[in-house]
Amino acid sequence: MKTSHIVLAGFGNVGRAFFRLIQEKRAVLLDRYDLDVGVKAIIRRRGGHVSSGSVEGRIDNEGWDPGVKLENVLKNLKPGVLVECLPSSLKGGEPALSAIRKALALGWHVAASSKGPLVVDYQGLQAAARHNDVQLRYSAAAGAALPSLDIGRISLAGAEILRIEGILNGTSNYILTRMSEGLDYATALAEAQAKGIAEPDPANDVQGWDTAAKLVIIANAILDVSFTLDDVRVEGIADFIKYAISRARAEGKKIKLLAKLTRRGEGYALSVAPELIGPAQPLFGVDGTSKGITFYTDSMGIVTISGGQSDPRGAAAALLKDIIGMFQG
Amino acid sequence: MKTSHIVLAGFGNVGRAFFRLIQEKRAVLLDRYDLDVGVKAIIRRRGGHVSSGSVEGRIDNEGWDPGVKLENVLKNLKPGVLVECLPSSLKGGEPALSAIRKALALGWHVAASSKGPLVVDYQGLQAAARHNDVQLRYSAAAGAALPSLDIGRISLAGAEILRIEGILNGTSNYILTRMSEGLDYATALAEAQAKGIAEPDPANDVQGWDTAAKLVIIANAILDVSFTLDDVRVEGIADFIKYAISRARAEGKKIKLLAKLTRRGEGYALSVAPELIGPAQPLFGVDGTSKGITFYTDSMGIVTISGGQSDPRGAAAALLKDIIGMFQG
Repeated sequence: MKTSHIVLAGFGNVGRAFFRLIQEKRAVLLDRYDLDVGVKAIIRRRGGHVSSGSVEGRIDNEGWDPGVKLENVLKNLKPGVLVECLPSSLKGGEPALSAIRKALALGWHVAASSKGPLVVDYQGLQAAARHNDVQLRYSAAAGAALPSLDIGRISLAGAEILRIEGILNGTSNYILTRMSEGLDYATALAEAQAKGIAEPDPANDVQGWDTAAKLVIIANAILDVSFTLDDVRVEGIADFIKYAISRARAEGKKIKLLAKLTRRGEGYALSVAPELIGPAQPLFGVDGTSKGITFYTDSMGIVTISGGQSDPRGAAAALLKDIIGMFQG
Repeated sequence: MKTSHIVLAGFGNVGRAFFRLIQEKRAVLLDRYDLDVGVKAIIRRRGGHVSSGSVEGRIDNEGWDPGVKLENVLKNLKPGVLVECLPSSLKGGEPALSAIRKALALGWHVAASSKGPLVVDYQGLQAAARHNDVQLRYSAAAGAALPSLDIGRISLAGAEILRIEGILNGTSNYILTRMSEGLDYATALAEAQAKGIAEPDPANDVQGWDTAAKLVIIANAILDVSFTLDDVRVEGIADFIKYAISRARAEGKKIKLLAKLTRRGEGYALSVAPELIGPAQPLFGVDGTSKGITFYTDSMGIVTISGGQSDPRGAAAALLKDIIGMFQG
């Protein structure tokens, strides 16, 4: 039996879903993976829940101790796994970035869900993990239940990646799908917001920045490079003309917000932009809130993965997968 | 630097492709994976090539030493990796099964490409690998460059697999695709044979046994069960009526030779049969010689992987991936 414990930082949608999932999966972790990981503490901005055993059951807005700070909890416990479900800015990475840095420095493994820290300081975080001999995993930040990193790093090991194309943002894909069905942009966006698919401020999704962040994270992880958002040419769908979509439809094609990594000389070019794709392309069937990614390789042909639950439960499942992976083999 | 060596058993299409690929990838293995693995010997029925350094360059029909036997080579060398590219029967697993058993018993890791041994004696081979503290990997036997096992075991770790659907045989899929384009069965088969897609004796492919073998291997590997071919209800495409295909087409649907694993009570039901699928199903776009597999899960949603080079080079790349995996963290 492998035993460890978790400190959960952040208790928004993903943090809550993770806390529910880890309780739901307790028997599976024990039986199938011989793994006993309890949640020792949940910390959010307004305080924390800490237990000498494990925090369990339903946690609502009651009983948060405002004196509990993440740093102190990480210092006072034997290192285990920090599950990071904090907000993060794609600009500075905070507040998630500082939390991850502290945890790594104190010898904690980290399962991260925030894109900001990885986009801002991928190489720094990798170096900190190596230096402290701990693991930093971040499937939840790179497609979540869509296992883009596993494919790129494990399944395609030994192959040369010649090109990557991805539909990496469910919100913009949903809007484009609805537009191809006849809605105009404003109506499609309003519908997505009403359904909870788009956030009240949809800028990161529709302007392509969320897609670009995932592309940067995937590229850095798989190709061992150190791109930032500044290296990506980004064009969103906000101003994209309905006419092009109807015309694509008339030709049996679709407009998709496509993340692309292509070879350029000795390096790579990264872009996010609406592009026309036809039925012969592997991502053609990826509609609605679905996501997908295609790897073009030298020795394994073209490998596409699509689907993966696009919600907090899917992100929580990706965090859980990363934790299981930390203690395997 | 991790150093090991390879004995390659079998020098048919896959064996040859592997021998070419491992030479082509020598620098990548060193630079990216810090791995030095030379081929110490190639053994086929009619003899072997053995080197005190490594066997390199072009190997043709010249220079095979008829006195070289696999068992002796495995006994006389320090254990490394047996790369198994032998023929195998889906009935008895031979001759690949005996070769793998010998290698495991002598302390060799095995990267296997043959389906027969895994279908016939999965649990026995697993037990032998555990007993001898060596690794047995077999991506090449379970979809090759289509990473069905990685997804099921690594990417979906912690998730419950509720259902699997797969198009796992490129030959039958090619024939069905061509039939949906108007060809009759005999013409589509003849065309596939002329292109080298179908073998002169296409029985295993068109009768569904190759698909069933892959389904059994995937189920055993992912769900830790021990099915054999006897547990699969198998129906092929050979006698499938053209009328059903035209009718599917008229409705915007397709007939696919679908491998399915579903829950039944506490266990699972396995089947291979031609089935009608519609455009909303994730495998709808998997045409021609392509393959694909969909996992339905409780916490990660629906995850589909498709593509993956369907030829000896793809199989060789899967063997290489497995070897890299053996020496990673």
